[in-house]
Amino acid sequence: MTTLSSLRVVVWGENVHEHRNAKVGALYPEGMHATIAAGIRELLPQAEVSVATLQEPEHGLTEERLARTDVLTWWGHLAHGEVADVVVERVRRRVLEGMGLIVLHSGHYSKIFQRLLGTACSLTWREAGEKERLWVCHPGHPIAAGIDRCFELPQEEMYGEPFAIPAPEEQVFISWFEGGEVFRSGCTWRRGNGKIFYFRPGHETYPTYHDKNVRRVIANAVAWARPQGVWRDSCPNITTPLEPIRPKV
Amino acid sequence: MTTLSSLRVVVWGENVHEHRNAKVGALYPEGMHATIAAGIRELLPQAEVSVATLQEPEHGLTEERLARTDVLTWWGHLAHGEVADVVVERVRRRVLEGMGLIVLHSGHYSKIFQRLLGTACSLTWREAGEKERLWVCHPGHPIAAGIDRCFELPQEEMYGEPFAIPAPEEQVFISWFEGGEVFRSGCTWRRGNGKIFYFRPGHETYPTYHDKNVRRVIANAVAWARPQGVWRDSCPNITTPLEPIRPKV
Amino acid sequence: MTTLSSLRVVVWGENVHEHRNAKVGALYPEGMHATIAAGIRELLPQAEVSVATLQEPEHGLTEERLARTDVLTWWGHLAHGEVADVVVERVRRRVLEGMGLIVLHSGHYSKIFQRLLGTACSLTWREAGEKERLWVCHPGHPIAAGIDRCFELPQEEMYGEPFAIPAPEEQVFISWFEGGEVFRSGCTWRRGNGKIFYFRPGHETYPTYHDKNVRRVIANAVAWARPQGVWRDSCPNITTPLEPIRPKV
Amino acid sequence: MTTLSSLRVVVWGENVHEHRNAKVGALYPEGMHATIAAGIRELLPQAEVSVATLQEPEHGLTEERLARTDVLTWWGHLAHGEVADVVVERVRRRVLEGMGLIVLHSGHYSKIFQRLLGTACSLTWREAGEKERLWVCHPGHPIAAGIDRCFELPQEEMYGEPFAIPAPEEQVFISWFEGGEVFRSGCTWRRGNGKIFYFRPGHETYPTYHDKNVRRVIANAVAWARPQGVWRDSCPNITTPLEPIRPKV
Repeated sequence: MTTLSSLRVVVWGENVHEHRNAKVGALYPEGMHATIAAGIRELLPQAEVSVATLQEPEHGLTEERLARTDVLTWWGHLAHGEVADVVVERVRRRVLEGMGLIVLHSGHYSKIFQRLLGTACSLTWREAGEKERLWVCHPGHPIAAGIDRCFELPQEEMYGEPFAIPAPEEQVFISWFEGGEVFRSGCTWRRGNGKIFYFRPGHETYPTYHDKNVRRVIANAVAWARPQGVWRDSCPNITTPLEPIRPKV
Repeated sequence: MTTLSSLRVVVWGENVHEHRNAKVGALYPEGMHATIAAGIRELLPQAEVSVATLQEPEHGLTEERLARTDVLTWWGHLAHGEVADVVVERVRRRVLEGMGLIVLHSGHYSKIFQRLLGTACSLTWREAGEKERLWVCHPGHPIAAGIDRCFELPQEEMYGEPFAIPAPEEQVFISWFEGGEVFRSGCTWRRGNGKIFYFRPGHETYPTYHDKNVRRVIANAVAWARPQGVWRDSCPNITTPLEPIRPKV
Repeated sequence: MTTLSSLRVVVWGENVHEHRNAKVGALYPEGMHATIAAGIRELLPQAEVSVATLQEPEHGLTEERLARTDVLTWWGHLAHGEVADVVVERVRRRVLEGMGLIVLHSGHYSKIFQRLLGTACSLTWREAGEKERLWVCHPGHPIAAGIDRCFELPQEEMYGEPFAIPAPEEQVFISWFEGGEVFRSGCTWRRGNGKIFYFRPGHETYPTYHDKNVRRVIANAVAWARPQGVWRDSCPNITTPLEPIRPKV
Repeated sequence: MTTLSSLRVVVWGENVHEHRNAKVGALYPEGMHATIAAGIRELLPQAEVSVATLQEPEHGLTEERLARTDVLTWWGHLAHGEVADVVVERVRRRVLEGMGLIVLHSGHYSKIFQRLLGTACSLTWREAGEKERLWVCHPGHPIAAGIDRCFELPQEEMYGEPFAIPAPEEQVFISWFEGGEVFRSGCTWRRGNGKIFYFRPGHETYPTYHDKNVRRVIANAVAWARPQGVWRDSCPNITTPLEPIRPKV
């Protein structure tokens, strides 16, 4: 297993809201990705954490870079459609090889999340600055380490059920919303040799990625999702059998 | 698959609170099991629905009766420890053969539920007469047929996460509670050839089993859990191989 | 649940090998899809079974036709890349709504199978006319109804592990091959509201779809995969909360 | 996560065949458990590995010892019924807290395995000294690290499908048998906070636990199953709600 001291993390950010909405720009002056990366660096100081954005060539996710990435985090919202299919497919193949993937908030509608899960990934939503309380459903899980029975975010966008996902393999968090809804806020799946974690909070107009519990969960998830081995895809023709095949008439 | 017109359902009730607590007796004068059975009969008129209670010989669950039962519903609370292990094991074997099992409310701590799931099945709880709202997480699921986006129970006991269960294979409902908690209220699993559904509501001091949505869900679950085939346990010694085994030195 | 008497099945065939390879043409003079459809009609006489092929406009899978299809079976091999992405996405959305999907043999590499499962779906293989024996792993499962402990195909292409799929929700069959390999030959998954079954046998140069056990399994799978309800995708903005949201400073 | 250098492993052995059957005694002069323990020590030299047997008081599994055990391996066959229920329940609770459990061969019928999985765990079998070939189904999985595409055991007891288990969460190995059967030989599940691995080989009359691949798999599984956190069971009454509960009439 990759050790924490050799862990290479890429924090991917769509980086659009920050430049269009003054409120977002004020909360995240260097971009949401910069704040998310800072949180991971703070809690996993041994890891090598870098950022990549939509606007870079190949969205900053070249074959070479992905080949040396252990865990990728993904935040996108407005520009899911602008992410090149070739890059999405490249990320997908790298997850199948073993790279961990942490999908954040509105990333539920990203191409990469839908492509790995196979489902619609839709949900209900409301922007009303309401309170969200995330409950720990799996207290011994490494992603919930250091988190109390629950934690609150004073203002967040609401996401509600039904969340159109395959049944999570582990349910780490479920959210309670002030306006009356619930949501499966922390879910894990495996695809190929890679681990996937979806984590709900993170609307751009709130300081969510400055919250210490949110930062703790993301850092925990990055450590949890690191590769446990490598898998290389192939579909070989095995011409020589291990046992004799009797001739048929 | 068993058709609805030949479906044989047994509603099992612990039948203790009804005789000790006047409030429960007033809500359920013939016992909670009688009310639950009436709800199933109303919505599945083709089915043959009968009741069984703790106090009957073998708790009303003889080998013969279980052998001709397609779906069993289970409500217990005070007297889990009084259910004979031999009957629990008999029910477990029948579920593995294909009988459906619907576990209700405080049945989360019944021997049969723990025995089939393998986990502790614990949770947090509070009796404060608070509002519960059950959200549909899987709108196309047959157990949620006829239920709107959500439904409310004006007063219920609270059950909160963490609910110590194996990850549900399907998440049909999640509850929102007025006091701030959430709970995985409708969950499915398969064990052997049998289908299992856990459904949270049903505290004895509230008229929950008179509620039309609760009755609808239970009847839907009974229909969903009916056997799709029979499996007979065996561990045979297959002395004659299908392929020749070469003598070893 | 859709009844068998109203079941509408579409058998999709790539329909290429039949016209290029005399051996295949001789085994399946009207196309492999015609033989598969005949097997379903024979065993599910109440169902309405039709065929569709790659060469038809929109591959025979228009929005209108899919909207009234309950279960789709898929055989493809040489021409996976010629299936239009828009049709693949259309099929995927219809599966999420509830349509059953039965993927046959080399369909493991079809766009639709990869798209719903999210993984590479690769395997090892050999064309040597070897014996395959399929073992029933789940004897009470409706897809295995009428099948003995195992059944044999005298000559088949070999598919071997590793099969790069998400863990099957149910393992119905595993194959033993004369040349020494094994393979997860009958697997189920759910995506959205739809059921998916993968069934391994069916290399074009052998009379596999004339085999009575293979026909039985496919017909069983079609009946098993029929819709249990309908799910309509949406991602609504729920502007009016059910509970009051307190103003924040 | 427990590090390998602080890992405490207990190898539990039934220790009966060794004293009754000269062939078994000759293969395993200090007991099968001693050979299994030696293999783990060789490959995980940092770990602290000890043994426990049926004949010791409390079968060597006191509360105190289990409390400081990270991973337990289990081999039993003749004397499953002699294992005290109170010890089985103690082991189960410790697995739910986070202890890993590796169940070997005939341990499929142990009380602890059935108790955690909930199913019958039966299978078919034959003692004919036939060749077994174990295929890797999940090449990137840490339990398969260092294992080639497959490995062979020249003589083993046959275990065949159907294996009456809940669907494995990960399928690491499937066996091919010379006599014509297949079997899910390496399976993982989670229960509570604990990881479980079942590994098929290990009939007492063959030198299976001297085989280098078998030893590698067991050591890998021990490392994989180590605790990732601790979970303490409780079912608390939360009398003070986090949100106000409005008085009902």
